[in-house]
Amino acid sequence: MSSAVSPLAPKTYPEMPTVRGVRMATAAAGIKYKNRTDVLLMVFDEPASVAGVFTRSKCPSAPVDFCRTNLPHGVARAVVVNSGNANAFTGVKGKAATELTADSASKAVGCQTNEVYLASTGVIGEPLDATKFAGVLGDMDGSAVGDFWLEAAKAIMTTDTYPKVATRTAEIDGVPVVINGIAKGAGMIAPDMATMLSFVVTDADIAPAALQALLSEGVGPTFNSVTVDSDTSTSDTLLLFATGKAGEDGQKKVEKADDPRLVSFRNALNDLLKDLALQVVRDGEGARKMVAVTVTGAESDAAAKRIALSIANSPLVKTAVAGEDANWGRVVMAVGKSGEMADRDRLAIWFGDIRVAVNGERDPDYSEAATTAVMQQEDISIRADIGLGNGTATVWTCDLTKEYVAINGDYRS
Amino acid sequence: MSSAVSPLAPKTYPEMPTVRGVRMATAAAGIKYKNRTDVLLMVFDEPASVAGVFTRSKCPSAPVDFCRTNLPHGVARAVVVNSGNANAFTGVKGKAATELTADSASKAVGCQTNEVYLASTGVIGEPLDATKFAGVLGDMDGSAVGDFWLEAAKAIMTTDTYPKVATRTAEIDGVPVVINGIAKGAGMIAPDMATMLSFVVTDADIAPAALQALLSEGVGPTFNSVTVDSDTSTSDTLLLFATGKAGEDGQKKVEKADDPRLVSFRNALNDLLKDLALQVVRDGEGARKMVAVTVTGAESDAAAKRIALSIANSPLVKTAVAGEDANWGRVVMAVGKSGEMADRDRLAIWFGDIRVAVNGERDPDYSEAATTAVMQQEDISIRADIGLGNGTATVWTCDLTKEYVAINGDYRS
Repeated sequence: MSSAVSPLAPKTYPEMPTVRGVRMATAAAGIKYKNRTDVLLMVFDEPASVAGVFTRSKCPSAPVDFCRTNLPHGVARAVVVNSGNANAFTGVKGKAATELTADSASKAVGCQTNEVYLASTGVIGEPLDATKFAGVLGDMDGSAVGDFWLEAAKAIMTTDTYPKVATRTAEIDGVPVVINGIAKGAGMIAPDMATMLSFVVTDADIAPAALQALLSEGVGPTFNSVTVDSDTSTSDTLLLFATGKAGEDGQKKVEKADDPRLVSFRNALNDLLKDLALQVVRDGEGARKMVAVTVTGAESDAAAKRIALSIANSPLVKTAVAGEDANWGRVVMAVGKSGEMADRDRLAIWFGDIRVAVNGERDPDYSEAATTAVMQQEDISIRADIGLGNGTATVWTCDLTKEYVAINGDYRS
Repeated sequence: MSSAVSPLAPKTYPEMPTVRGVRMATAAAGIKYKNRTDVLLMVFDEPASVAGVFTRSKCPSAPVDFCRTNLPHGVARAVVVNSGNANAFTGVKGKAATELTADSASKAVGCQTNEVYLASTGVIGEPLDATKFAGVLGDMDGSAVGDFWLEAAKAIMTTDTYPKVATRTAEIDGVPVVINGIAKGAGMIAPDMATMLSFVVTDADIAPAALQALLSEGVGPTFNSVTVDSDTSTSDTLLLFATGKAGEDGQKKVEKADDPRLVSFRNALNDLLKDLALQVVRDGEGARKMVAVTVTGAESDAAAKRIALSIANSPLVKTAVAGEDANWGRVVMAVGKSGEMADRDRLAIWFGDIRVAVNGERDPDYSEAATTAVMQQEDISIRADIGLGNGTATVWTCDLTKEYVAINGDYRS
């Protein structure tokens, strides 16, 4: 477990405004960690709309199964999140643990179990002792307050080196609404939704179906475009809640995602999702550099994204970035292995603003010194133009360092 | 560049017999390295049959393009291999370099340029100065001898820490034949043929079409089942030559790959290909442990192979192996992300002979001490039974260590 904060961490945290309709509390239940909070309870005193996206893993965790079952109901009253144990690959015991936790939460909050949402993160395969929740959730409901976002973000951390929070404002019907979000990530991060745990709450009044459409559309260029190590978790969960409290200010409920009144909200939500997703990458295990990989000129946007991910997931590209080595030959390799159409003789590659290769060979104006200067920066952009069409995509990743190996060679024990 | 020999290196090298019909010489042309050989010339004084498999990269090197063009002709008289520069992504200059090299080789050996085969390995994107070959190939032809396999293997090394050679014998028509092979690899190693450079020569008399069928069939469970880092090179080349000299002992030429006389030869060839492929993995950059990943019970053999590769390419599985951590939760994760059908509740996982998980949860008899003892070994087997069908596959990989990052963070400079 790394103790030093990532050098790519944000220098300041935003002031997180209150979102009417949600209260939070954290507790130290001793699930795995000592001397730190590891349980988060979010309470919606009145029913909130809920939308969710989850891992595409064929072996999802018990909490993911539980949330998927509840989601069609569309209403949330409580969220229980724990760190330290993922409750994944825990068989019938895992299912029992989710049921016990949901039962405890429903009693603490006074709701149905199908209005409870659960998420767990941490070690896979160890049985989760849910009785540890039973004792604390009642007290937590009593102490939960609205102004608790940063503490909430801290309680869900595992190998994260800093808590991840973001806030945005928007307008619907001229009524100001707030969107707050928290996330955790760091390792086992790859596209295929949801890449990690994230919980986003707004006081806007939006029906579940519209909320789901907004979320499903929003994750593509944000959470589904970041990768730390190409490994997809069993537990990835992103939940979006709308408490509807802005209705008190005159905002009329939005029923459909294509409602033109959502323009401002959609932009703010997507911006917040991107903010949180990039914070996850910037806390990539062992990360020392942030890399934006942009592919242009591919046959389609989907092809561009596959090529960009091939570059962003290549261990050889990522170690070159770690070594501050402008090794664009490895970018060529990664383009070539993506399986998408590419023509060596039309390919051009940039590091930062410097074009290093063009027309199938090294740029005649290539300067090793100038390119090395780019590689020494903390934020690096790599662009590959395929020269075949108009497809574009950007994905974000971090470098692959010795610290990644150290962190993951000794995580479980 | 690592100087220490991999701890997984073979303890002894086999005695390499002469293969009648091929002569070899090496030279130090100073392409990149100092004080070592970096060019290999193989000469077939009489035309040999040739078969080849190459990288599936969409951005192959100039030598790969050159070989592909010549292969339909089916006859080889000379092979020129250099290390230090891959002549990949070098545009028109790269093509010119292959033409100049082939021209020099054809003059030195006295053959047509379409009877010359080329391979280059090393840095991508740097122009290759082929005039360095022109001066040495004539002398090399003069000095080439049959008994030179280990030196040949040394001349084609890049980040390899040991030369890779293998030999087998077989019988066709009761006539003994020899198969010798050399390979280089170490990084940028992943399936999708041919994974690296390898050159195999036999004195059997086999027509090009039959030879090609044998080779294409043989690479699936061997070279195409090893992965060091999931990165596919632009230059991967595996060439198989048959000099036909066993004809002098009465072996009648084999025209078709399904000829029953090939049973012994096919077995010997496949065994040799596996030997060389595993030597490549055992020299994986920074490797300290060799891992055999076997998947059983998948829906099909192809599904089993995709799941096995998902496990073998997972940075989290590979770092856990490096840390001697029996973190089978990461194996579950990798099964789940493969995209193939899997049912958590039917999954079982073994490290070595120890079943660590069964029926969707930790094995009731799980012993941390016994499992840790397995992880401390140099050769580790991981098995996942999917419980759905009869598909099986085995792939081989190595662990992901800090040394891999160190080697690749500072290769080009």
